Amino acid sequence: MIPSVSQAEFRAAMARVCAPVNIVTTDGAAGRGGFTATAMCSVSDEPPTLLVCMNGRSAQCDLFLANRSFCVNVLSAEHAVLASDFAGATADMGARYERADWFPLRSGSPALVDAIVTFDCLLESVSRVGTHNVMIGRVVDVALRERASALLYFDRSYVEMAAPGPVASPR
Amino acid sequence: MIPSVSQAEFRAAMARVCAPVNIVTTDGAAGRGGFTATAMCSVSDEPPTLLVCMNGRSAQCDLFLANRSFCVNVLSAEHAVLASDFAGATADMGARYERADWFPLRSGSPALVDAIVTFDCLLESVSRVGTHNVMIGRVVDVALRERASALLYFDRSYVEMAAPGPVASPR
Repeated sequence: MIPSVSQAEFRAAMARVCAPVNIVTTDGAAGRGGFTATAMCSVSDEPPTLLVCMNGRSAQCDLFLANRSFCVNVLSAEHAVLASDFAGATADMGARYERADWFPLRSGSPALVDAIVTFDCLLESVSRVGTHNVMIGRVVDVALRERASALLYFDRSYVEMAAPGPVASPR
Repeated sequence: MIPSVSQAEFRAAMARVCAPVNIVTTDGAAGRGGFTATAMCSVSDEPPTLLVCMNGRSAQCDLFLANRSFCVNVLSAEHAVLASDFAGATADMGARYERADWFPLRSGSPALVDAIVTFDCLLESVSRVGTHNVMIGRVVDVALRERASALLYFDRSYVEMAAPGPVASPR
């Protein structure tokens, strides 16, 4: 059997992947939660489906699994501080949410008003892989903001990418 | 039951996610394959694990499943043409590979010489979600290139992100 690479090698390699930064939220009978994640990707457009990986050791896991819904807020360039808050710099959930404006999408999960794009999901299934839960979500609502710059995480730093293409008409 | 968003809405929303571009390769008894993918993310570092989503209608699916190994090559900024080739602009697999230099990592899958980072994986499991196969890979080898710019896909265009942080010593 070929051995795995070490944790340190894997982390150093993953740090070189320039990834979009998301805040994943939930709200419902089990309560409100939210965390910062880069491990999110599209799965299928038939039906529209995405996935998010969540550390199974997080105290919030039960909350997401009980609410059976979550919202992926893809962050704009101005959200670096908010990303840090939801990554753990701010422990209190109320304080995390107070620092931005939110509105409920179809499932009831909080959508960030000025996210670059928001995907509202119903939790379809969860599978455990190593330390993490892979949450598969069926997308029941989306909200888009026109031409915002994206917040990315690259080499353990937040960086910003302007939207390409023609400039949109002023709003 | 809350209905899903339409395919068109989902695609338009996913186009706003600024994602790193990868070429996923395989080589083995079943033959050599390779395709461009943005749907890749880290799953767990214990053991080091990542996932890639692959369209189940692709003629290459059986090949990846039979070889039981794949390599994720995270592309550098100079790989936009190669990304298009492996996304289908070039149909012939030999012609796709001829346009770059490759070396085998531990599993035998081809690693792109100047990828920003390469993850060599053994296929641990596959689950079908909608139209796609979610391939879970245990990472058995990595190769890193120092301080290359990343190739990203944003609003249906290739864009480039320079590595942040201090400039490395010249090579």
